[in-house]
Amino acid sequence: MNSVEISGLIPKLGLVVVGIVLVECTRQGLNYLQRKNSKPVIRQVIFFPDKQIACKDFFDSVEGCSRIRCDFSHTTTGFRQLLSHIKSARKSIDIAVYCISCFEIADVVLQRHKVGVRVRVITDQSMEIAFGSQNHRFMKDGIRVHTNKPPFLMHHKFFIIDDELLCSGSFNWTSQAVTGNNESVIITNDPWTVEPFCAEFKKLWQETKPGN
Amino acid sequence: MNSVEISGLIPKLGLVVVGIVLVECTRQGLNYLQRKNSKPVIRQVIFFPDKQIACKDFFDSVEGCSRIRCDFSHTTTGFRQLLSHIKSARKSIDIAVYCISCFEIADVVLQRHKVGVRVRVITDQSMEIAFGSQNHRFMKDGIRVHTNKPPFLMHHKFFIIDDELLCSGSFNWTSQAVTGNNESVIITNDPWTVEPFCAEFKKLWQETKPGN
Repeated sequence: MNSVEISGLIPKLGLVVVGIVLVECTRQGLNYLQRKNSKPVIRQVIFFPDKQIACKDFFDSVEGCSRIRCDFSHTTTGFRQLLSHIKSARKSIDIAVYCISCFEIADVVLQRHKVGVRVRVITDQSMEIAFGSQNHRFMKDGIRVHTNKPPFLMHHKFFIIDDELLCSGSFNWTSQAVTGNNESVIITNDPWTVEPFCAEFKKLWQETKPGN
Repeated sequence: MNSVEISGLIPKLGLVVVGIVLVECTRQGLNYLQRKNSKPVIRQVIFFPDKQIACKDFFDSVEGCSRIRCDFSHTTTGFRQLLSHIKSARKSIDIAVYCISCFEIADVVLQRHKVGVRVRVITDQSMEIAFGSQNHRFMKDGIRVHTNKPPFLMHHKFFIIDDELLCSGSFNWTSQAVTGNNESVIITNDPWTVEPFCAEFKKLWQETKPGN
C-alpha cells in the first residue's frame, strides 16, 4: 500500500470513528433518560435484633431530643428503617403478617390510614384474642382486618407499600422481634419479586374473612 | 447541494453506517460471551400451601410411579422445588431455621452430608427437646448443629446453598408449613441479597453453641 492509498484511507477511518462515537453517544443518552425516568432500585436486607432502641424524640418530634444524656440511639436502627418504609406509603399498605402486637408499628399504620392511605390487614386467626394484638385497634379506626380459618396458620410475614415495595422475611410485628430475636427482612422494589406477592395478597384477601 | 456533492456524500454515509454496525456487533458479541460465562440469574418465589403432595416414587425412584391410579402429584410442587434447591448443593448448606421437624427435608440434607457437602445447622434452642425435631438425627450422623441462648428466639428461616443461593421467608421446615399454612419463600442468587445473609450466618455461627 503506497502513501497515496494510506492518505486516502485516513478520512474513511475517521468516518468510521464518527459512526462509532455517534452510536455510543445516542446509547448513553437513551440510558441516561431511562435512568432519570425510572425509580431507584431498592434491594435492602435488615437483620434483627437491633443493638439499641432508637430515640423516638430524636426521630419523630420537631424539637428533637432534649435529654442531656440520652440512653437511646440517635443513629438509625433496623426498626427505624422498617418504620420509614411504612411511613413512605402514599396509596396503599397491604399487610399479611401472622402476629401483630407491636403498638409502635401499629401507630404508624394508623397514621397512614388517617391521611387516606388504603390499609388492608390479614393476620392469623389467633390474633383475634391474643394478648397485645393490635387487630381491635385497627378495626376501631376503620381499617379492614381479615383472618384465616383454623387449624392452619396464616404464617406469612410480608407487607407491600403502594403495590411496588415488598418487605418480607421471618419478622412478625412484635416488640420481641425487634430487640430480642434473630430475624431477617428482605426489602425490594424488583417487580419480579413484588408482583407475585401482590397476586398472593389479592388471592388471600378473597379467601379470608373479616375478623371479629 | 448539487448531484456531484450528493454522490460524494453517499460513500461517506456508508462508512458511518459500517462504523455503527461494527460497534453494535462487537457489543452484542461481548454481551453474548458475558452471558455464556455467567451463571443464570435466579429470582423465584414459592408460596405454600401446596395443593397436592408430590409423588415420591415419580420424582425419586428410577422406576418411577407404578400405581395404576396415583393420588399424588406428578407435576412439580413448591415442596419439590425447595427440595431440588437443597439437592443442588455441591459444596455447602448453611441452615438457620427456627424449627426443623420435616423428616423429608432432613433426609435430603443428610444425603448431601453423606456425599461430602459441608452442612451447618442453627435452630432455636427449643428444637433440642421439641417433638419431631430433626436435630438429633443430624447430630447422630455427624452434622454440626448449633442452638441459641434463651429467652429470645433464633427465629430466622433461611438457608444458603454453596454460598451463592439464598432461600428465605416465613417457612419453617415443618410438614404443616408445606401442606397447611400460608407461607412464602424468596429464592435468589443475587449477590446483593445473598452476601449479607452469608455474613449473618457466619456471625450467628460464632455466637451460638453446639446443641445437646
